[in-house]
Amino acid sequence: VPFIQKPENLSHEDLVRRASSLVTDSTNTFVSQTTLALLDSLTGYVKAINSLVKLHKRYVDSISKLSPVEENAIWQVILGQRQEVIDKRKDYKQFESCWMTAINLSKLAADAAFNAGADQASVTAQSSLQVAQSQVEHFQQLMQEAERDLKDSNAENSERLQNHSTGVEDEDIPDAYLRED
Amino acid sequence: VPFIQKPENLSHEDLVRRASSLVTDSTNTFVSQTTLALLDSLTGYVKAINSLVKLHKRYVDSISKLSPVEENAIWQVILGQRQEVIDKRKDYKQFESCWMTAINLSKLAADAAFNAGADQASVTAQSSLQVAQSQVEHFQQLMQEAERDLKDSNAENSERLQNHSTGVEDEDIPDAYLRED
Repeated sequence: VPFIQKPENLSHEDLVRRASSLVTDSTNTFVSQTTLALLDSLTGYVKAINSLVKLHKRYVDSISKLSPVEENAIWQVILGQRQEVIDKRKDYKQFESCWMTAINLSKLAADAAFNAGADQASVTAQSSLQVAQSQVEHFQQLMQEAERDLKDSNAENSERLQNHSTGVEDEDIPDAYLRED
Repeated sequence: VPFIQKPENLSHEDLVRRASSLVTDSTNTFVSQTTLALLDSLTGYVKAINSLVKLHKRYVDSISKLSPVEENAIWQVILGQRQEVIDKRKDYKQFESCWMTAINLSKLAADAAFNAGADQASVTAQSSLQVAQSQVEHFQQLMQEAERDLKDSNAENSERLQNHSTGVEDEDIPDAYLRED
């Protein structure tokens, strides 16, 4: 704790109130930055899901018309897109955790500012919080819709439709070997 | 949440990390200011207790030598000093509550900074916290000793020693009136 010369005419109450306003200023910024990061990562996650669902639907719809080579190529793209969904989900979870920490800090800071008599700082912090929370809620609804589509389509967990697979390699492996534990 | 243009070459992680450092900077300041306020109020409280204990001891020790006028004058000073102890205790409790809020905010901010990758900011915040806590602990020990002396002396709650009171006014009041409920 550095020594801070107490300015003339400022009481400890004044100095504590000012310091608590500094805290709400910085937690407001922290909330802003984590909100932007979270919204961006939510957008990326929703886009990745939508791409996978579309791609998977096209694969299922056209499976009877695909050559083995085409089927394999599209399946590889689907696998890549599944990984994209996993990566984007991880990003979003990470920023969501950061954002929740920022929200908690900001709530505490708003309470502290109120208790220290920095009413305006407290009100500003609370209104920033509300805007951030309603923005995130809106994007979380979009995400939940996308996740529902993902689940309904089974695009993340479906088995490969191998009716166009040549199956040659499998036939080369003796049954006994396949059954070995 | 204001719109903040994302600077080129800075990722969301960078911006969140910077914002979390701002938070630890401000919570460090908040801890400093509330610590100084708390230490000052603790010092004032301890001084008020010590004055009361000394004054009360002088009163008790010299009661047999005091004239009724002197006894009354000293008793009035004791009553004033008892109120001073109550006021200073209230001040100290108020700043202690503020200080604990600041400590909690700073701990959360240090964790948030660590999770956001702002390791240095987190370490700085933690060491500020430790210094503040050990300073306050030292003063709290002095306060506890003073409160023990206060309790042992009974200086805050003792009855007035009225053996030097003239008692004239009391004797003017009929016993029946005094016993009225």
